[in-house]
Amino acid sequence: MPLAADDRLTETFSALANPTRRSILARLAEGEATVNELAEPFAMTLPAISRHIKVLEKAGLVTQGQRAQYRPCAIDPEPLREVASWAEQYRPIWEDRFDRMADYLQQLDNREDPT
Amino acid sequence: MPLAADDRLTETFSALANPTRRSILARLAEGEATVNELAEPFAMTLPAISRHIKVLEKAGLVTQGQRAQYRPCAIDPEPLREVASWAEQYRPIWEDRFDRMADYLQQLDNREDPT
Repeated sequence: MPLAADDRLTETFSALANPTRRSILARLAEGEATVNELAEPFAMTLPAISRHIKVLEKAGLVTQGQRAQYRPCAIDPEPLREVASWAEQYRPIWEDRFDRMADYLQQLDNREDPT
Repeated sequence: MPLAADDRLTETFSALANPTRRSILARLAEGEATVNELAEPFAMTLPAISRHIKVLEKAGLVTQGQRAQYRPCAIDPEPLREVASWAEQYRPIWEDRFDRMADYLQQLDNREDPT
């Protein structure tokens, strides 16, 4: 049964709340990789890396091939698209803040240099 | 001492991995609110809501006024801007996937209707 959008976002954010898992995604953005290849850059045991991959897989961020000997991992960008779209709904707020800051700096500037 | 960008992202994602905390942010996006006002729509005790607000505050997503009787909470959108910008780096991947899906559907369409 597919998770409701709210539960899925919770699972995605929870999976992303870890620097190793974000590094794994960054690596997979460059192309598929086996668990061994993913483990290389980290000072971590294979089981530890495998656990991180399981979390990413459960959140739908990574898919893993089924062949026993060679099971490459691939990124699934759909949950990342959902995160971007969720965060973007707050864009008016950060842009408004930026505009007000710019106005304020402009006022300071005018006061110091009244040409 | 400010957190490194990587630690800050981890703290932000961790704070966002909860539907109640995301609802609090959505409410604060409409304007400041006291803890009492924030607690109203949720079937939760004030201490429970306060704990959620503390997590949001620690992650820099919410600021709280200092006056003892009236301490309105406000949203700070900066960490949300960082989340959007982090997720957007994967946009080429989800757009590429979308393009390939569109190509595939186009091919199916051409095959069924060879005009």
